[in-house]
This record gives sequence, structure tokens and C-alpha cells, in this order.
Amino acid sequence: MIKIGVVGASGYGGGELLRWLLQHPSVKVIKASSRTYAGKPVHTSFPNLAGLTDIRFSDDADPEDFKGCDIVFLARDNGVAMNLVPCFIELGCNVIDLSADFRFRDPAVYEQWYAKHSSPELNESAVYGLPELHREEIKHAAIVGNPGCYTTTSILALAPLFAIRDARPNSSGAMKPDLIVDPASIIIDGKSGVSGAGRSKFGLDYHFAEANESVSAYKIAGTHRHTPEIEQEISLLAHRDIRISFTPHLIPMTRGILTTCYANLAKDMDADTLRARYREFYRNEPFVYVSDGLPATKHTIGSNMCHIGLAMDKRTGRVTVVSATDNLGKGMVGQAIQNMNLMTGMEETTGLKLAGSWP
Amino acid sequence: MIKIGVVGASGYGGGELLRWLLQHPSVKVIKASSRTYAGKPVHTSFPNLAGLTDIRFSDDADPEDFKGCDIVFLARDNGVAMNLVPCFIELGCNVIDLSADFRFRDPAVYEQWYAKHSSPELNESAVYGLPELHREEIKHAAIVGNPGCYTTTSILALAPLFAIRDARPNSSGAMKPDLIVDPASIIIDGKSGVSGAGRSKFGLDYHFAEANESVSAYKIAGTHRHTPEIEQEISLLAHRDIRISFTPHLIPMTRGILTTCYANLAKDMDADTLRARYREFYRNEPFVYVSDGLPATKHTIGSNMCHIGLAMDKRTGRVTVVSATDNLGKGMVGQAIQNMNLMTGMEETTGLKLAGSWP
Amino acid sequence: MIKIGVVGASGYGGGELLRWLLQHPSVKVIKASSRTYAGKPVHTSFPNLAGLTDIRFSDDADPEDFKGCDIVFLARDNGVAMNLVPCFIELGCNVIDLSADFRFRDPAVYEQWYAKHSSPELNESAVYGLPELHREEIKHAAIVGNPGCYTTTSILALAPLFAIRDARPNSSGAMKPDLIVDPASIIIDGKSGVSGAGRSKFGLDYHFAEANESVSAYKIAGTHRHTPEIEQEISLLAHRDIRISFTPHLIPMTRGILTTCYANLAKDMDADTLRARYREFYRNEPFVYVSDGLPATKHTIGSNMCHIGLAMDKRTGRVTVVSATDNLGKGMVGQAIQNMNLMTGMEETTGLKLAGSWP
Amino acid sequence: MIKIGVVGASGYGGGELLRWLLQHPSVKVIKASSRTYAGKPVHTSFPNLAGLTDIRFSDDADPEDFKGCDIVFLARDNGVAMNLVPCFIELGCNVIDLSADFRFRDPAVYEQWYAKHSSPELNESAVYGLPELHREEIKHAAIVGNPGCYTTTSILALAPLFAIRDARPNSSGAMKPDLIVDPASIIIDGKSGVSGAGRSKFGLDYHFAEANESVSAYKIAGTHRHTPEIEQEISLLAHRDIRISFTPHLIPMTRGILTTCYANLAKDMDADTLRARYREFYRNEPFVYVSDGLPATKHTIGSNMCHIGLAMDKRTGRVTVVSATDNLGKGMVGQAIQNMNLMTGMEETTGLKLAGSWP
Repeated sequence: MIKIGVVGASGYGGGELLRWLLQHPSVKVIKASSRTYAGKPVHTSFPNLAGLTDIRFSDDADPEDFKGCDIVFLARDNGVAMNLVPCFIELGCNVIDLSADFRFRDPAVYEQWYAKHSSPELNESAVYGLPELHREEIKHAAIVGNPGCYTTTSILALAPLFAIRDARPNSSGAMKPDLIVDPASIIIDGKSGVSGAGRSKFGLDYHFAEANESVSAYKIAGTHRHTPEIEQEISLLAHRDIRISFTPHLIPMTRGILTTCYANLAKDMDADTLRARYREFYRNEPFVYVSDGLPATKHTIGSNMCHIGLAMDKRTGRVTVVSATDNLGKGMVGQAIQNMNLMTGMEETTGLKLAGSWP
Repeated sequence: MIKIGVVGASGYGGGELLRWLLQHPSVKVIKASSRTYAGKPVHTSFPNLAGLTDIRFSDDADPEDFKGCDIVFLARDNGVAMNLVPCFIELGCNVIDLSADFRFRDPAVYEQWYAKHSSPELNESAVYGLPELHREEIKHAAIVGNPGCYTTTSILALAPLFAIRDARPNSSGAMKPDLIVDPASIIIDGKSGVSGAGRSKFGLDYHFAEANESVSAYKIAGTHRHTPEIEQEISLLAHRDIRISFTPHLIPMTRGILTTCYANLAKDMDADTLRARYREFYRNEPFVYVSDGLPATKHTIGSNMCHIGLAMDKRTGRVTVVSATDNLGKGMVGQAIQNMNLMTGMEETTGLKLAGSWP
Repeated sequence: MIKIGVVGASGYGGGELLRWLLQHPSVKVIKASSRTYAGKPVHTSFPNLAGLTDIRFSDDADPEDFKGCDIVFLARDNGVAMNLVPCFIELGCNVIDLSADFRFRDPAVYEQWYAKHSSPELNESAVYGLPELHREEIKHAAIVGNPGCYTTTSILALAPLFAIRDARPNSSGAMKPDLIVDPASIIIDGKSGVSGAGRSKFGLDYHFAEANESVSAYKIAGTHRHTPEIEQEISLLAHRDIRISFTPHLIPMTRGILTTCYANLAKDMDADTLRARYREFYRNEPFVYVSDGLPATKHTIGSNMCHIGLAMDKRTGRVTVVSATDNLGKGMVGQAIQNMNLMTGMEETTGLKLAGSWP
Repeated sequence: MIKIGVVGASGYGGGELLRWLLQHPSVKVIKASSRTYAGKPVHTSFPNLAGLTDIRFSDDADPEDFKGCDIVFLARDNGVAMNLVPCFIELGCNVIDLSADFRFRDPAVYEQWYAKHSSPELNESAVYGLPELHREEIKHAAIVGNPGCYTTTSILALAPLFAIRDARPNSSGAMKPDLIVDPASIIIDGKSGVSGAGRSKFGLDYHFAEANESVSAYKIAGTHRHTPEIEQEISLLAHRDIRISFTPHLIPMTRGILTTCYANLAKDMDADTLRARYREFYRNEPFVYVSDGLPATKHTIGSNMCHIGLAMDKRTGRVTVVSATDNLGKGMVGQAIQNMNLMTGMEETTGLKLAGSWP
């Protein structure tokens, strides 16, 4: 059994980690820390786990307590992990960080959008935890920066517009750039459920009475911090610098992310041809489903799936790609466990073949 | 008192009309027809009106029954009004049609998106009922084609990108083209509450258990019928043919429309300057509010207001304009009453200074 | 025009007061205080009022500022009004208090459930602001204690089980006790929307992500503070001490209260007879609607109506009465304005014949 | 591997069965019939299963097709199973019926509340599928009538008020009557999410726009068909005929059932003593959790758990017991699989230790 520690286990990310890990056949959570609930059984924070586990929260004062963990998941605010990870690495724990601290190749980008990075050398060895693009590196990584929720959903929707991959049996699966859209035309209109705002430090905007029955945009016009993450990965794929417009919206639902992506086609192509290209790109991916129709977030809630649909507008020469994930599933915790499976040499889908519920 | 008839009064449009008209000081509803509820008190269809009115639904078999009405509102499906309106005009009733039948200047466009028009000559005299753009014509119209909900919200968000107006006191308020964006770059990402789907003929997509906790796109890539309406009005403003991309989304809320509009700026301009341009454009408009911040649909529910906010993305040279209305308020019934006020020579805001509720 | 002041105008009660008073033809709000938003336009707190009023919040430091107000509404927490009301009375303002401070005839009951009362002598002259039971006293009151939301909805559902009234034309409308149920058998199961929790000091229970998609009971088994209010009024009607069981529930909706009331019938009576008794009791009440069917909260949202329905269970000899209000309408602000109309000698329904919206 | 058939697999019960069975380690679904979706892959009806299974719906015309199934789940309307079950039994399949057809010991009760029973002899051998009360009989049953959702949640809340059980290690777990409440005083106020209404034949009441933001009672005063089921089981426990009052309510959420149960205590007892009695009663039950606090439906969504909390009102001598389940989990499909595990000799909790998600 792989031994697991979770730092910051009483937030939404932490709670989902505990839940998914409980259902994983080959792991044991030996430590789950929480400053708020230290010493208490996990069901005091997550009543959904009552009667299903005996785990108690520990205090997270001392990283030494995680000694012996094979994998430590960090589910704390941005800016915390970069100070803790050195200790965990020293202790011999591999790390999957759910914050932004280890997502950026270029520390200058992190500094511009977040703050000065305190562990730039470790950052250099960290791998961006999107298996569909970086599977082999993840397998050998000691530190994985787990992607943001909007980011995963956006990149998976856009990648096949910028690259093709060799998906033949026995092939390496290598990708190479192949742009079929105007790279300056990318617009991502994101819609997220309220759990994306996190559990702590929430304000009036997330009061049920104010968030309910309303939709709104926030941090528009390139000010949301998931923008540079998307740009980093798309640029890597395309082998050129790409800037995108990303606009997040708050939707009156608990979970789910939908991204509606717009791009001007550089080549004439019909929807079926494009869909075939997407299917080829994701042919061996267990958690990406390219639909004939259009995805709804409900199709993915509770699972590690990303659903993708698309359509072509001949009138304007524009393609619209729509993708959906559970922001706490493939958008966060499911993906983190997928990374864990890869890092520990387990079958990638272990414990992850969960279907979401309907309705 | 102005005498009012409502055809198709038991749908969501009809019910809101009855409710708003009850609170209007200068009108009396003398006829409200419904095939489904014929002969029954209105509260059998709209329990919110119980104890507040004695109106009963009449059958709508015979247009002659509406004789004596100054204004007849038609709240039926597309394709019905074009057959009924000739009778109402013959009877001397002016008409405000909430369907698409009288919204298109060019009957060929109607035919392409809907069906063959059976009253092309009457269509020629109809006015598009968006007071912010066509106030003077509405005042003298016998037939007003009341705009669609997505349409109103989109056009009000976009108009000041394509034209300026003389808003000085005593000026004519005339508009003239003045493009500040690339006309080929317009993308409208629309989000609508479920009431937009109407009350009858609803299917599994609108079952609470399936619509709740989900967001989805539908009729994407230029296939939604509000597309040509938006294009007609923007093209008129810009004095050139403009094509836009419009993508509607279904949001798990009862009411409200948010449109997030993207355009590439053709001139360098900061957000404050653009906001000032919007405020100038709408200076005398009682129902358009240009906000310093970003609108949420909740800001407008229950009122006839359209709220508009905007931001500039220097990185991509793109402007994002966000607008919100109540799809059954300014997006439909409030606007219809605004048109009625104009057509009957009443003060435009009569009965419409309602604030929506909070929360 | 009646001059109005509102203390604590930036909470949900305050915001609804401002909104309803804006639509009232015979009043002018000359002062609306808020500690949080002092000096700012009201739309900074209530975006729904943007473009519809120029009122700004004042600081509420000094009660003297309310000099000249005919009526002051107090919309602050329990325990505040009892210290402020003496000043307002001194200034010649009549007071409608939305907190619990002036709702109890017996200060010992207030002390038991809340705290020591600092103005017991003024409390003695205060009138409980439920017009259906205390209309004449309200007309002559200087201080009205406006009922709680659960309370109004419960009392209106139960009153006709305990008393009858002389509702003939020209009669006094006097009530006299007439019990038709076992007074020890009363159980009230209340369901409230989340806005009932108020806008400030809200916690994780009201985070959208946690309140959504869940129903729960709270303060059960006679521990909710609306219990003694209901008992006071029912006991007054019945001319005997009555204890009830009241259990509140939190429902994932913004507004609305439903109470399901159970009682064992002491007399054999069928549902039609009982319904007739209810209709007789409320014959002259403009804001109580006794339905043939069963009410839903949606029937009353946005209005000052209380809807009541009932059924009889022959198998158990029990009657079930269901009542619905908008917790911020008849359950709070609508009722406060109804009281204001009575206190100022206006027609009782002035500004209150608003229908809620549908859907 | 146990071979499974599902009849009526495209409704909410059927879809949840497919989902839970996919995650069960020891079963294989070999047949899933649907008249509506015959021949199509299951993801056409349940997009949440896309990419996770290759099962296709078969037509359900011929019961012979289910030959070879060890267990057939019937998820059709009331009145269908009683005609199909004889064939399945003939084919050697054991049956778990999710309808009401095999829930009643006394066919006269079924006839009174539903219709004439066409298989009274098979009905006689059927076992009521509530493992907490009938575990041993279920193990040997060929036909199990799976309880209703309100029913399970209500009975588990009430049982320890009527009986005690020998829960010592090595004891038989036998129950014996032990009433601590007035049996005539039982009132159950039930609250259900909208999925309880089913997927087909839904009407305007379940239109998102009408069900949302509203709570209502329906089928009140002893007219809901789950009433006799609750009475049957409580009466069995108590060894006397008991009549209860049951009132269902529709809550604007997709899933979940909360029952708030009221009873007059016949003995003086404090809350802690009563809670200890509940814990003793359910000591060995893996899916019943007696909480120190109060349950919310969200605590149980997605799992097979029933959470129970309680409080005592000294003022009225009444106990309030609150219980929560997922209406499609322990209230239906989870319980059906628990029954399957028992009938097939598997460990009772196999495939059922799923935690619901949070938030």
C-alpha cells in the first residue's frame, strides 16, 4: 500500500482527496493535517465521511510528521507549498501540489502573477501535472504542479487545434505543432460552479442568497491567474508564444466547469474532420471523451472525465469547442490521483473509473 | 385608460405581461386569451396573481373578441402572429408582437431562419421595438416586433462600439456610424436562465433534476435564431453588413440573461474612455445603466433595466463588454410595455420604474 | 408625503424596505443609515437599485439625524432597537421595529429568550404588528414590534383553529376564542429560504456550495426564538396558555417560508367546512388568500400575500394546514409597510398591491 | 461474477443501478433493457457513463432474454413487475423489484392504495427489502420488494422508538417491541428532491423554472402511497396497528430526502439516553449513522448511508428525530444492491462503501 499524506485536508480539495483516496484500492492515508480541525475526526469537517473512515486530522505544524509518506498532497493556498516542499523532498516524500506554486516553468511568470518564488531550484525540476501532455515526465517527477481547474478544461479543449500526435499502437505518442487556427484569435469563456472559490475566506459573493439565481463575470480582460497557465501549455504545444483571452464566470451551481473556446480557422475544415482530429489526438486517453454532441458539466460531475464537443460556423469561419469537467474531479483531485498513479507506477486509471451520478 | 388585450396569456410572457400591466396606472386588461386555460381565472395558471385580480382567460378562437382594444400584445409561438395581425389591424388595434414574426426588415431573412412570411406587406410597416435605437419610429408604429431576449441584451452591449449619438440637450439624439472595433471580430457568449425556454413543449432538458447543477451550450456556431436579429440591428448602426458569432448557454437559474461580448479594438483606447463613450451613448436612456463594475443578472431581475460593464485587455487588444437583463423584463415584457407607452403617447417610464428585489 | 427613516438599511430587510418604499406613492425616504456603507450611494449595497434612486446611506451614529421623520423603521439586530427607540420617540418619530425587541407583551419572556430589556416601559405601549389580529391597536401605536417571518406565516395558518371572528359588514371584526383542535397537539414544521439567515455574520452553512442541494433542520425541539412569539399570539386568541412545537428547516432557495402545521381535531369536521371557516375568518383581509389547493412559496415571492391551504386526514383525525409567504414580504417588509400605512392613516393596501413574479 | 439484468434501465433508478453496478467488483450487467433507448449505447440516456462502459440498451419485449441472469432488477412503474416476475422466477432469476408491487404483506392493502395484484401467491413469498429489519429473510428470498425512498428514511428514523434489539456480539440481533412513544402521535414531515418524481411523465411542476426557488407540500393528509408501507413496518415492529401522518414536500434540489419525525414520549427520557438507545439499535449496521448533531441531506448524497439525529423538547414532551438519505442511494439503488449482496451471499457492504461528495 502506498502511504499518503494530505496537507490542508479540510478544504474542498482536501476533502475530495480523502474521499477519492478512500475508494482507491492501493493507498492508505496515514496523515491528514488541518489547522482548523486539528485533532478532530474528519467527519467534523466532512459529514459525508461519517461512518466510513476513522481518520482524524492532525495539526500541520511540523512537516516531519509526514515522514514515511510516499506521496504528500499539498492542498493549501498559493504561496504555502513553495516553503514546505523542500522539507518534504528532504524527507523523501514525493509531492503533488494543488496550488499554483509549481506550475510555471518560468519563475518570472510566477512572480508577475503571484509573488516571488522561494524555491526556484526545486521549481525547475517540477513537472506540470497534465498527463495528456506530460505523461512520461510525470512518471519520473518528484514534484508535480497540479493544474488549475479552468486550465485543465481549457487546455484539453484547445490542444488539438495546435498540435497533432502520433497515436498509432506502439508509437511514442509524441506531439508536434500543427496550427489550424489563427493563434491570435483564441477566446475562452469559462463558467465555473461556486466550489471553485474555495471553502475558506469566502465572502458575500458566495452567500447562497446572493450567488443563487445569478450569473456574473469576474476578473475579466486577462486578469485571472489561470491565463498564464493556459498560455504556457498552449505555447509549448504550438512552439510559439500565444496569448489568449480568458474570462471566468460564476454559475449558480456547486460544481463543474464549462469552457467555450472560440478560434478563427486558418484552414478550411468541416466539423466532422475536426472531430476526427480530436479523437485521434485523444485516442489513448482514458479520461477524455470527444462527444458527437455538446457536453454539459453534469455529464462529468463526480468523475475524472473531460468531455469535449465542437461545431463549426461556416458563416464566420470560426470553430467553437466546448469542454466540461468537474472542477474538483479532472479539474483538481481526480487529476492529482491520476498523477499519483503515474508517479508510483500504478495503472493510471486505478481508483479513477468512477462514473458521476445522474441526475 | 388604455384598453389592452393579450393573446396567449398563459405562457411566461403572457403571465409577466398580466403582472406588469396590473401595476401600470393607466391601462386596463380587458381580454387575456389562452387555449389551455380558457374560461378559468388567471390564478389557475399564475398562482402569484391569486387575490390580486379578477381577470379570467378567454378562448382565443376569434380575433374579433379583441375589438375595442387599443393595444393587443401577442405572446404566441413564432409563425402565429403573422396570421393574426392583419385581423387586429383591421379592427383598429395596434399590435406589439413578442414573437419573431415582425422583427425582420428583410422577409428573406425571416424565411431563411423561420418560414415563409404570410404578411410581407404588413411586415414592411412594422418597427423593431428597441426604443434605444428606434424610439421615434416606435411612437408612430401600428405594429411593433418586440426584440428577443438575447438580442436586446447583446445589441445594447455592442451598439456604442459601432456608433455614436448626439446626446446633447435639445439634440435629435441621432446616431451615426463610428466603428472602433474590427467588425469581423465580434463574439457574443450568451448565458440564459431556464425560463427563456418557455413554458409549453418543454422537455427533459428543462426537468429540474437535469437542468439543475449543470451548464451547457446549445445551438452553437451560428445556428441560434437570435443571430440574424443581432446582425440586422448592428449592421444598421454600422452602415455595413456585420456577421457575429453567437453562442447561447443554459444556466441553472430561473431568470436572467448575461452576454459577454468580445471585440478586437481598432483604435487604442483605455477602459475609462470607452466607458465614457458608453455613458454618452446612453445618457438619456432611463433603462440602461453603465456600471463602474461588472453586472450580474441578479442586479436586473424583476426590473426593466439593462446593466452594462466593460474592461480592456491590453495584452490582447480586446475589449470585453458584459451586459445583463431579466430575460422576461427588459428582455421581453418590460420592453413591450415601454413600447406600449411610446405607442400610446404616455410617458415612456410609466409603470416601469420597478426595482428588482434583493437578494 | 410621509417622511421615512430607515436604520440599518444595508441588510436584507433594509434593502427590501428601500425597494418597496420607492414604489410607494405617498412616502419619501429622507434618511437611510448604514454603518458599513455610510456615505455611499445605495446601489453600492443594492445593485438592483442602480439608476432608480439617488439615495445615499448616512452614518447611523446619531439618532438626532432622524428628526423630522414621521416613521422610522429599525432594521438592526435584536438588542439594538430597545436602546434607540427612546430617542426616536422623544424626537416625535413613530417606530416600526423589525427586530424582536418590541414583540413581547411580557418582558420576562423577552428576557428568557433574548436578554434583559432596557426599555420595559416603552415595551408596554408597543403593539404587535400583525394587522390581521391587531389592526385597531396598530392604528394608534407609536411603537410597533414587527413580527418574525416564521411567526407571521405560522400564526396566520393557525389562528382560525383557535378563534372565530365577526366578519359581517359593519361588524367590529371582533374575535372570540373557539377551539376546534387539541391545544396540546400543535406541531409546526417550518421551511425557510436562506435569506432568512440575514446578510451579515453569515457562516459556512450559508456558503452557496454547502447550502445548495441540501435540506436540514436546525434549532429543533423548541429552541428557536420564534417559538414564544407564536405561543404568545395563539394563546391570546385562545384565551389560554398554549405550547407549540416548532422546527425550522433551511431550504436551498433564496426566499420564501412554508409552514406545515399539524393539529388533532377536537371536533369532527370535513375539509370544506374548515376551509369555509378560514375564509370567513379572513374575509376582509386583503393579504390572506385561502386556496382550494396547496400553496407553494413561489406563489407569494415578491408580494405581501400569505397563501393558506389545508386538508383533513380522516384516518388519524388530524388536520394539516400549509401556509406560504415571502419571508421578506408579508414575513417582514411588506408587513412593516402595511403597519406604516395603518399608523399614518393611509389606505392599508397603498403601495402593496404588488404581485410576485412568475416563474 | 454474478450476472445481472436490469429492466427499465433508462429511468433514474435504472441509471443509478448501472452506475453503482459498474463500480461493484463482483457483478456483470449482461442485460439492460429500455423501451425508449432500445439498441442504443447507455450514454445516449446517461451521458455520465460515456467512455466508461460499452453496455447497450436492449428492448425489453421478451423476459426470456434475461435467461441466465442471477439477479434481475426491475425498475419500472408500479403495476408492471407483478406481471413480469412470474416469468423471471420461472427462468430461475431472483428478483429485486424497485416498484411497490412486492412491498405489501397484505394484498388488500396493495389493492386499496394501488390496484388489484395479479400475482398474490408470489407476493406471499416476497420479502420487504429493508436489511436493518429483515436481513435474514432477505438472504433467502427469491423476490425482494425494495422499499420506497420516503419509507426507508422514515422507518429507520422511527424503529428504535418502537422496539429494542439484542445487539450483543454473537446474539441473534432479534428485535422485540418496546414502545416509548404514544403510538397515535407519530407525524412524519418528509422533504424530497425533485429526482424522486422520476424521469418520465414529468409535468410542469418539475419544470426547472417552476420547481426552482419554491417549496411546496403535496399529497398531504394521508394520501401519499408511502403511508401504508411505513405503517406496515412500524406495526410489525411494535406488534400492534399503528397509523401515522405523513406529509411529503417538494424541495428545489436534485436529490435527497429528509424526514422530520415527531412523537410524544410515553416515558421521561433525555436526549442522550434516547441517542444511546438508537446507537444500540443500529450498532452493527454499516449504513446507519447516528449523529451527535443534526443531519442534512448533503451528508448522504451519493452514498448508501442513512444519517439520524434527534432532540428532545422538555416543554412539550415531544421528541423530534431527523433522518437523511439519498433518495436514489439508501432510498433506492444502494439498498437494492445491499439486498443483492445479501441474496447472493456476498459480503453485505461489497461495492457500497462509497462516500458521497462534498460539497
